[in-house]
Amino acid sequence: MIGGGQGAFIGNVHRIAARIDGLYELVCGAFSSNAERSKASGLVLGLPANRVYSSYTELIEKEKQLPEDERVQVISIVTPNHVHFAPTKLALANGFHVVLDKPMTFSLQEAKELKKVVEASGKLFCLTHTYTGYPMVKEAKQFIASGKLGKVRKVYVEYPQGWLSTFIEGTDNKQASWRTDPTQSGIAGAMGDIGTHAFNLMEYVSGLQVTKLCADINIVVDGRKLDDDGAVLLKLSGHASAVLMATQIAAGEENNVKIRVYAENGGLEWQQSDANTLQVKWLDKPTEIWRAGSGYVSSFAQHNTRTPAGHPEGYLEAFANLYKNFALCVQAGIDNKQPEPEWLDYPGIEEGVRGMAFIEHVIASGKTDNKWTDFVI
Amino acid sequence: MIGGGQGAFIGNVHRIAARIDGLYELVCGAFSSNAERSKASGLVLGLPANRVYSSYTELIEKEKQLPEDERVQVISIVTPNHVHFAPTKLALANGFHVVLDKPMTFSLQEAKELKKVVEASGKLFCLTHTYTGYPMVKEAKQFIASGKLGKVRKVYVEYPQGWLSTFIEGTDNKQASWRTDPTQSGIAGAMGDIGTHAFNLMEYVSGLQVTKLCADINIVVDGRKLDDDGAVLLKLSGHASAVLMATQIAAGEENNVKIRVYAENGGLEWQQSDANTLQVKWLDKPTEIWRAGSGYVSSFAQHNTRTPAGHPEGYLEAFANLYKNFALCVQAGIDNKQPEPEWLDYPGIEEGVRGMAFIEHVIASGKTDNKWTDFVI
Amino acid sequence: MIGGGQGAFIGNVHRIAARIDGLYELVCGAFSSNAERSKASGLVLGLPANRVYSSYTELIEKEKQLPEDERVQVISIVTPNHVHFAPTKLALANGFHVVLDKPMTFSLQEAKELKKVVEASGKLFCLTHTYTGYPMVKEAKQFIASGKLGKVRKVYVEYPQGWLSTFIEGTDNKQASWRTDPTQSGIAGAMGDIGTHAFNLMEYVSGLQVTKLCADINIVVDGRKLDDDGAVLLKLSGHASAVLMATQIAAGEENNVKIRVYAENGGLEWQQSDANTLQVKWLDKPTEIWRAGSGYVSSFAQHNTRTPAGHPEGYLEAFANLYKNFALCVQAGIDNKQPEPEWLDYPGIEEGVRGMAFIEHVIASGKTDNKWTDFVI
Amino acid sequence: MIGGGQGAFIGNVHRIAARIDGLYELVCGAFSSNAERSKASGLVLGLPANRVYSSYTELIEKEKQLPEDERVQVISIVTPNHVHFAPTKLALANGFHVVLDKPMTFSLQEAKELKKVVEASGKLFCLTHTYTGYPMVKEAKQFIASGKLGKVRKVYVEYPQGWLSTFIEGTDNKQASWRTDPTQSGIAGAMGDIGTHAFNLMEYVSGLQVTKLCADINIVVDGRKLDDDGAVLLKLSGHASAVLMATQIAAGEENNVKIRVYAENGGLEWQQSDANTLQVKWLDKPTEIWRAGSGYVSSFAQHNTRTPAGHPEGYLEAFANLYKNFALCVQAGIDNKQPEPEWLDYPGIEEGVRGMAFIEHVIASGKTDNKWTDFVI
Repeated sequence: MIGGGQGAFIGNVHRIAARIDGLYELVCGAFSSNAERSKASGLVLGLPANRVYSSYTELIEKEKQLPEDERVQVISIVTPNHVHFAPTKLALANGFHVVLDKPMTFSLQEAKELKKVVEASGKLFCLTHTYTGYPMVKEAKQFIASGKLGKVRKVYVEYPQGWLSTFIEGTDNKQASWRTDPTQSGIAGAMGDIGTHAFNLMEYVSGLQVTKLCADINIVVDGRKLDDDGAVLLKLSGHASAVLMATQIAAGEENNVKIRVYAENGGLEWQQSDANTLQVKWLDKPTEIWRAGSGYVSSFAQHNTRTPAGHPEGYLEAFANLYKNFALCVQAGIDNKQPEPEWLDYPGIEEGVRGMAFIEHVIASGKTDNKWTDFVI
Repeated sequence: MIGGGQGAFIGNVHRIAARIDGLYELVCGAFSSNAERSKASGLVLGLPANRVYSSYTELIEKEKQLPEDERVQVISIVTPNHVHFAPTKLALANGFHVVLDKPMTFSLQEAKELKKVVEASGKLFCLTHTYTGYPMVKEAKQFIASGKLGKVRKVYVEYPQGWLSTFIEGTDNKQASWRTDPTQSGIAGAMGDIGTHAFNLMEYVSGLQVTKLCADINIVVDGRKLDDDGAVLLKLSGHASAVLMATQIAAGEENNVKIRVYAENGGLEWQQSDANTLQVKWLDKPTEIWRAGSGYVSSFAQHNTRTPAGHPEGYLEAFANLYKNFALCVQAGIDNKQPEPEWLDYPGIEEGVRGMAFIEHVIASGKTDNKWTDFVI
Repeated sequence: MIGGGQGAFIGNVHRIAARIDGLYELVCGAFSSNAERSKASGLVLGLPANRVYSSYTELIEKEKQLPEDERVQVISIVTPNHVHFAPTKLALANGFHVVLDKPMTFSLQEAKELKKVVEASGKLFCLTHTYTGYPMVKEAKQFIASGKLGKVRKVYVEYPQGWLSTFIEGTDNKQASWRTDPTQSGIAGAMGDIGTHAFNLMEYVSGLQVTKLCADINIVVDGRKLDDDGAVLLKLSGHASAVLMATQIAAGEENNVKIRVYAENGGLEWQQSDANTLQVKWLDKPTEIWRAGSGYVSSFAQHNTRTPAGHPEGYLEAFANLYKNFALCVQAGIDNKQPEPEWLDYPGIEEGVRGMAFIEHVIASGKTDNKWTDFVI
Repeated sequence: MIGGGQGAFIGNVHRIAARIDGLYELVCGAFSSNAERSKASGLVLGLPANRVYSSYTELIEKEKQLPEDERVQVISIVTPNHVHFAPTKLALANGFHVVLDKPMTFSLQEAKELKKVVEASGKLFCLTHTYTGYPMVKEAKQFIASGKLGKVRKVYVEYPQGWLSTFIEGTDNKQASWRTDPTQSGIAGAMGDIGTHAFNLMEYVSGLQVTKLCADINIVVDGRKLDDDGAVLLKLSGHASAVLMATQIAAGEENNVKIRVYAENGGLEWQQSDANTLQVKWLDKPTEIWRAGSGYVSSFAQHNTRTPAGHPEGYLEAFANLYKNFALCVQAGIDNKQPEPEWLDYPGIEEGVRGMAFIEHVIASGKTDNKWTDFVI
């Protein structure tokens, strides 16, 4: 693991996610750019001292020299955005599979380069857009793809948070500090941090792609350097349209990402606060409450659930599904087997490039007086 | 009553609303432009034949000639949009108070004229934006106005319906026919029918006014003549912003108008499907579930509720609140008394003018390539 | 109307319910046993002074002497329980139809007598068990009766209130005073006031009858004279069983009566706080959300709804359904027509007798050391 | 681990729970009484062949002979009920800490013996009553204990399942087979399997103890040998009363265990389907929605949550909390430190004895004609 030392949030989430299904073992880490903190973090995690490194370059170099059955196979990179590209590139180039936190890179330019690196490396790459790991999000995608609802016409996707309602980057809040700092986060704040999740969720579930967008991007809290609020009108392939709302100043909101898709014959609704439920709506029949763990759901939902219906699984299990499927694909590669379609259903380099393109387009749109900005990569 | 004959939807709603609190008696009507249908409708409603008229002009003329203690005092006008302006003008000019269904007129031009007519008449005028009649919507307005949440920053308002998901104006559906017909509805379909409700709700609760907007307006169903879907980015006075979504092609949705307002210290959430609840959210405290009929709500909510908490009141009672408050103000005028602030809290000519301005601006914005359209009246 | 003067709760509810559908006109009243208060109440309600009476006996005598087309047709009796039997008997015996508030009488003995009076009178009688007036409660009954779920096995019915959590009968709360006073309420408090509603709802929806019961009856608040809390195990006809919970000391609860019925193939769930929804659950399919006002519901639900799906109707409309159906049956009698099955679906004398039997059995069970008390009338 | 081989449900849940926080490593197992199946299960789990045993006796004997720093420290026992007592006793007696699945033993007699064994062993013992591992259940307990709501008056606890609605023990469903078999499950079916969870949850949250009970115990499905449905009236210490409902024939229900506690000033409500929420109700204030991961919750809730509010944690994390706290206490013992109060808050031998007493009393009550059965151990 690169990054994720003491004080980080997402690093521990990655570690739990990797542990849940017993398919990974943490063997080494460069947990911080501060060597002391890296060492301390590794100690707490029970790693032997010689596998805790002072930098990602050291980690990659040293691990590469270890015998194949000893060295790390998959490197998780959970650093702030400005330290995504370089370690990922180095890891792939040295023959390691990579799991990377989102947004993928610091810029679209880096994203496009990384795509080439991934393709050239022959290694596997996973980008942790958590929400597509939920079994009922997968069910939603499958349901739309099945055509039962007809052609998609409208998508509403929203991601309301309230934790940046005050100028907490002025305090010692580490999360707030780097996420609102353009030198670490990139050109976008809320749009990069959570807008990309909403964008990814929308394209994943609907099976459509954004073709144009028109954005209202705001910095609401005085003194902040990056957007903390935004709303976007979007045109999707197939003559559909959408609205995307992402904000971090919705005081009183937690983290309830939600998507609604409407098609010719009915609609779907999913939200993280009731994550094990998918509402299926019909023009002329009662709404149906589809539930994770039920016997009637698709193989995609079943494969990504561990317990029967009524035993709620949540965010950590959704995250674990990314790790699980990635591990299954890595293992299939080792075993020279064809991975199952359910295993391959994790976000990768294409999603990463589109996410970075979203960031660049949405920020550009926020600054222009033209209504529609074409979404082109 | 003018309009609302057999086959109409909203006419019966108005009649129930007027009856609920026992403050009105139906004494006469011109229920249809078809004299036979008007007569038949009046018969069913138990009116004497001589008080059922063939046209609104006849109604106004004949009623005016009746002795003051016999003639109608308040005229409800529940016709399609293109027959709003003329009868309202005539009624006011002849000394009758008027209750009118929304949107107020066929065009902004008519709306501005009507404003002058109302002011000149000295008569009272109510526009039935139903949703501001709900007690917990009134509570929301009062809560924002109290300043407890601080300055408003963001509003999300949405009105999703699905009933126009197919080309039902091609069938004998009377509601669908006139509402999708530009000669009866005006320049807007969904934006006029439900978008104006959402707009009114947003300005009412937030206490702010739209200053600019940017709209994506769509005709989704083939063959339809007016918009059946739209989404709008808005700038509000006081540096706030908003998103308004109104659609009639959200297959599987009923009529769940919903508003969320976020301010510095917290937020509010109300939706019609849980109409007796107002969620009050805080940055750092548990969300509170405020309930209609409770002892702790404001005088505005209390005045507009008939039963204790836990006895759900709904759409018809919200509608009845408009009629009740209007009656109390009419009676106060008769009694030469000052109406209470709670009684005066019903939508009137200002809301009507702003609603028509919304329609014109939103449709214009939908057609331009400029991002922001200034909202000016 | 007999009872329901100033300060009363349920009297006004009855009047609103009677007005909603425009099938009744309030023509006379004896609103209080206090002649002054009766007069004052009548004045506020706009009645002519000569139709406001000082006592129910005066009302019945005087109205009887009026010409048939002038005199009252249906008498609503909304007094406390100890003044139910006598005025009902007198009204029926003098040729008036009667609507009576629940519980029907002061004792089972009176109830049995009243049954004979009703049968002898040839007049119609309605007992206002409000909750069976809800369209989705009717849908539930029809759904069970259709056999689609198979044989009923288990019923849970609950009626939690919190308003008697303190000794408020010690204050000037009129509602609390008579409802906790054995001389006005009868032998039961909570069991009579709300337990009978739950009992009625259970037998109505399930189509089954209680055959045995075992009750835990408590007086929780110090100084109270009647039960304010109870829970009952029940055996139903057809080898089913049930649990009934009714309490008035569930601090923080409002009035959320709720029923769940489980049968061989699935179950149903309805609660007043989401009154326009009936959940239909299946052993091996997604739960369905059936909604009032939808096109797919039965004629019983449709007949008892005024607006399309998504326009919430509530407690007052449910109450109005009792009045509406009773009026339709009275009118059918006048017109010498056969009433429709949907009209006949209102609670009457049988439900009243069973309700009083429930009170007597449940209170007796609460006092005995024997587990099961046979439910016999 | 003892038990939990291929085809088992709860064994895998235990393993995930133990992995989540990285405090356990699976080192050995006797996964089945069938040696082949045990071996196969161990292989899949990646254990070395020499640490996979054919029987629990072999496991305990062989592990005991290993050097202290190699041998297993905590033995999880996840076998059917009839194989709880013997391996637990043997493990404790040989110096291993034990985590045991519920219900604790086959009989109350065994439970009492086990209590003596635990006390004599000086080893730690955890009984996996999962639901008390949820952070908001802990919050509920702390809130009641704080006295803010006053004295507890009424508890409703329910555990409705539907999966035994048909005679599936007649199919090859392994779970159904042993759970409905008196030779493996003991004298109770539903009451042992889920009734004990409900009982434990009630005593844990309320801080009260059952003193008497009166049960209606049913076998609903033809041919079944043990109860599949029951409802119980209970008297609690402190003059409170309760209702407990547990059923496995509520067709359409999943696993939504729910508790409501009412006290003098308000009430609490928690249910597994919305596990991260605790509703706090007040007599005269709005209901509050307390959320796991929030800054305002108690140290008990915080300690048992891994992510900020809005990142739902579920059943597996609740289960993991039992394992985590047990590990922290085991480690504290090794380190000779005092465990924190939050760590000690896991169910143990006392809860196990009371649970077995519940089973014996509730089944006895179901068979007697006396209303109240005293609850004595």
